[in-house]
Formats: sequence, structure tokens, C-alpha cells
Amino acid sequence: MKVNRQVLLESRPVGTPVEHNFRVIENPIRQIADGEVLIQNLYISLDAGFRNWMKEGSGDHILPAMEIGEPVMGLTLGRVVESKNPKLPLGDLLMIRVSWEEYSISNGIDEWYVKLPEGIDAPLSYYLGILGDTGLSAYFGLTDVGKLQLGETLLVSGAGGAVGSVAGQIGKIFGARSVGIAGSDEKCQRLMDELGYDAAVNYRDTEDLSAAIDEACPNGVDVYFDNIGGPLLEAAINNINEKARIILCGAITDYHLDEPAPGPNNLFNLSKNVATMTGLMCHHQKDRYDEARHQIMDWIESGQLRSIEYMSDGIHRVGPAFCDMFQGKNFGKTIVKLAD
Amino acid sequence: MKVNRQVLLESRPVGTPVEHNFRVIENPIRQIADGEVLIQNLYISLDAGFRNWMKEGSGDHILPAMEIGEPVMGLTLGRVVESKNPKLPLGDLLMIRVSWEEYSISNGIDEWYVKLPEGIDAPLSYYLGILGDTGLSAYFGLTDVGKLQLGETLLVSGAGGAVGSVAGQIGKIFGARSVGIAGSDEKCQRLMDELGYDAAVNYRDTEDLSAAIDEACPNGVDVYFDNIGGPLLEAAINNINEKARIILCGAITDYHLDEPAPGPNNLFNLSKNVATMTGLMCHHQKDRYDEARHQIMDWIESGQLRSIEYMSDGIHRVGPAFCDMFQGKNFGKTIVKLAD
Repeated sequence: MKVNRQVLLESRPVGTPVEHNFRVIENPIRQIADGEVLIQNLYISLDAGFRNWMKEGSGDHILPAMEIGEPVMGLTLGRVVESKNPKLPLGDLLMIRVSWEEYSISNGIDEWYVKLPEGIDAPLSYYLGILGDTGLSAYFGLTDVGKLQLGETLLVSGAGGAVGSVAGQIGKIFGARSVGIAGSDEKCQRLMDELGYDAAVNYRDTEDLSAAIDEACPNGVDVYFDNIGGPLLEAAINNINEKARIILCGAITDYHLDEPAPGPNNLFNLSKNVATMTGLMCHHQKDRYDEARHQIMDWIESGQLRSIEYMSDGIHRVGPAFCDMFQGKNFGKTIVKLAD
Repeated sequence: MKVNRQVLLESRPVGTPVEHNFRVIENPIRQIADGEVLIQNLYISLDAGFRNWMKEGSGDHILPAMEIGEPVMGLTLGRVVESKNPKLPLGDLLMIRVSWEEYSISNGIDEWYVKLPEGIDAPLSYYLGILGDTGLSAYFGLTDVGKLQLGETLLVSGAGGAVGSVAGQIGKIFGARSVGIAGSDEKCQRLMDELGYDAAVNYRDTEDLSAAIDEACPNGVDVYFDNIGGPLLEAAINNINEKARIILCGAITDYHLDEPAPGPNNLFNLSKNVATMTGLMCHHQKDRYDEARHQIMDWIESGQLRSIEYMSDGIHRVGPAFCDMFQGKNFGKTIVKLAD
């Protein structure tokens, strides 16, 4: 009989998540019933945003709050290994909102799964990163929302993260100046060396972030792709050009706070510059995923775009890898591989 | 010889402006030189936003900071009464960025004037209000930026102010539910009785503004027209619908603060709702002023729209009327009439 290993939420994180907030347990796998499938999870996608749902009472119309002692909710890429559901035959590959676990049972009517698209020849892990929500967020953020133009300046926070590592590269493809913000000199160097960023600002190593951005963006900021929020957002707003577009994609600053931090105190600068700030949730562009994925693969195949992954192995690495993101240890998309 | 009376900035306001921040003086009017015109100011337009430029060191690329002991910078509607400039003949009517004063001398090459448009039969004061920056802000805010649709809910802060009094009415013309926020029960009643607002919230008379907005907007907020900023903006963001549009038109909350107040702490709600927040400066739509003014006049003539003015008489009323706005005493556009 197969055994399933799951990661439980052992305790709610206080501030930055730490390893002992999570615990791995083993359970036997029950028989599946009619209509159900057994899924072997091959990869787990780690997203800082899930930290939000680890807060007590944080549930909303999108997702319920996670409960202590329960498996941690997450997004996986899995393969159907047993099926009593004709719509999900053996071997089907699914992206599915289940738990941090090696095996999941689904009734197949859960709205939280999508089959992997056909017709694209890419490594599976790409569907969690550059071809998944994070890559697509970068793509639609810069096209539909940011409308980045040739010769403009793109500023990206969390520039070495899952979204930022794609956004900066797409900025270069569009002929913009890509400027990244990251949290260490080493990361800043990698932004320029590996991702083609024109300049990078280490926000931890400056007294005046606003002035540092100004220096890195001599022509001002036309598009700011925000994955961080908080003081970085405020500093970016100080540097926007007329008709600038700000894309609110993430706010990792807030995820580990119990009380939300004050917002930027300079929104008046949006008025003066007739600038726009827009929330981004890429699933609103679902009908164009196919187009976007083909475009992204074309760029990868022509060598203009690279998939950057922060990959770990095994269920015991899931909690630690999640914590790594909040300490800025990751570079690229954080993924844990569970099986081939 | 004619005498000019001017309003000086006697002292910088600390917090809310008070009457003794301003002083009226008299000066003889010098002869105009070649290329100059003498303008008799008929109306002075008062805008809370000018409070910003009364702060020390507040100058920016748009306007310089005002200086103590100097005439207060302002916007007037005046008539050319002497001319040594062929481009500005006697009798020409101008909107002009000069000072709070009865007479102004201009060299005619100042970029801060526009001639009144021809072909519209409207009272002159309309050009400072419903046909001026404030009315046009309401118009373009709801059309180009807010894209308000039939059946949606429009929430307006400063709903009895110069912009808000027009925005709420246009909301009704567009078939939306118009909900206003104002600072007294009396104003709230006037919003509904005189401007056709469907509901009104007195923000000074509620413990929980967010809940009060929720009650007044049972279907949520699709478009929020913000003239106030601060806690009102934050409460509105708590109530936005998916794909909501927020129009940042003014931030009177901030104008009288020396240090900017913290911004809304719930911008993540923009992300979750893929909502947009856009700064509005109506002069970016200058090429469509004519179209907008004709539309506004059509609505006025058909009885669908009313011009609401808070009108005072005489140069000595300019300072006090400006202060009135910060105490919420005005209803509609604040104007001081100086001459016929």
C-alpha cells in the first residue's frame, strides 16, 4: 500500500515563516471512490502569497484560511495514477490546488484544477513558473496592463523572484531599460549578469531608496512592476513619469504582517502625473494563456528568455523552501520536485 | 488712476487655513508697456489644491511655491480693459493664472491663460465651475477614466464640492447609482434633494466608515471618484468590486498637512479585484474640452444637470471663502465675484 507524506501547518507563522511552522506526516492512502482520481504530485509550486492564508481568519471569497494541524494548501503539478473518473484518465497531467503532499485525491469536479495544455514541448516545471501564473503575470502585466513601450524605463521590485526574473527579461525584449530592485549585492549582480537587467538597486544597502532609484533610472520610471509593496512602492512612486503605469502584482511586505502596513503616502504623485496603478491577477486573461505561452516559448527557443528556477528535491524541503522566499534566498521561481 | 486690491499671503497656514493667513492691500496700477494688457478680474476661482503651494518649499515642475508677503497665486476669469498687445484686444475674456487681485497685468505670452471658448451661451461663472476644470474633471473622470456604465454604483467623496456636485449628477445621467460622502447631515440631505444622489454617508458621523459605505452601496463600488484621499480612500477601497476604477482627483486631506499622511493600507485589495487607480488632471484632455462643454451645456439645458456655486462678493471675501472650503462650508464650486 502506498503511503502519502503531507506537510501540515504546525503553527501559524508570526512574522516571517520559519521551518517549525511546518511538519511532515505520513498517512496511508485510501481507496478512491467512483468519480475520483489519485494524483501523484510531481512538483509543488511555492508562492509567497500563500502566507496570507496562513493568518487566522484570513479567508475570503477566493480561498478559505488554512487551519492549524491541517495540510498546507498549495498548487501542484501532478499526474493521474489511478482513475475512476472518465474525464481524468490515467496519465493526465494536471495543475491542481490541493495540499503540500505527495499524493492527492480529487473528485474531478473541483474547480481548482486545469489540465496541462497540449502542443507545447516544454519541461514540466515550466508550467509552474515561466509558463505558469508567475510567467504569465509578467507577460500580461507588461503587455495588457503596463503597455510597456520601446525606449521606456521599466522598474521591477522582487526583480530576482519568480515574476520579476521574467519581467525584467521581457522588458529587454520590448526594448525598454530594465532596472531591478533586490535585497543583496549578489542578487543585484545576478540580475545584470544572468537576466540582462541594465541596472539594479540593493534596497537593503541604501539610506535613500528614492534617490537610488532616481540614479538608476535617469529618465524616470514609466512602468513599475511591483511584487513587494510597502516602502519600495512609495519610493517608486516618487520617481514616476507622466502617464506612468504601476502594476500591483504582489505585496510580500504585507504577507507576514498581522496588521497591514500603512500605504504609500505619495499617491498625490499619481494625480499630478496622471499615472495609473492597476491590480494584476493573470487568471483574468485566461482566454489568452495559449497565445502567451506560445510567445514565451518562442522567446525561450530563440535564446531571448531564460527560465530561472530555484529548485529543491523532496517533501521535506517544501517548508524550508517556502521560508527561503521570505529571506530572499530564492532566485527565480521556487519549486520543489517530488517525483519524475 | 485706478487702484488694485490684492490678497497677500500674510503667513503660511498651519493646518487648516484661517482668515489671518491672508491680508488685502491696495496699490496703484502702473502703466502697461508694449505687448502687455491690463485685465480686470471678474471672478476668482478657489480651489483647495492651491493650499499645497502655500507650504514652504512646495514648488514643483508645475508651479512654484507661494512666498510670504506676495500676492496669493490663483485662477481668475478676467476681461482685457487696456491692451498694447494685438493678440489680446480690448474686451477679450480670459481664464488666467495670476493672483488674487482685482487687476492683473500680463505680457500675453504667459502660458497660463486661455481665451474663453466661443459658441457657448453660458453665464461667465460657469467657466470656473461646471464648464471649467472642476466640471471637466467630473466629466472626463467618469467617461475616459472611470468608464462608468449603466447600472453600476458610483461613490463620490467631497460629494458636495465643486467636482463632486457635478460627478454625482453625471452618474445619474449615466444610469448609475450615485452615492455621496460629505461631512454633515445637512450636506448629505442636500446631496439627495438638490443633486439627485441616491444615498449619502456623513463621514463625520460614523464609527465605521467602511461599513457605512457598504450599507449605502449594497452592490459594492464600481467607480470611486476620490476628491478627499486619506481615510475615505481607504474605506472606499474596502468596498470595491472586481474591476473597479478609482479616480484620484483630489486629496484635500493632505493639503493642509506638513508631512504627508500614510496612504491606504489595503492596496492589496486592488490586486485581488484587478482594480485600477488613476490620477486625473483634466488638462490632459484639452483637445476634447469643446466636445465636453457642449455635452455639459446640453445636459444643463435639458434640465438633467445643475451648476451649483458657492458664490461670494468682493476681494475681502477671497481669503475667508478659501478657508470655508477646508471647513466644508461650501456647497458646489467656490467662486468670488469681483466685478460685472
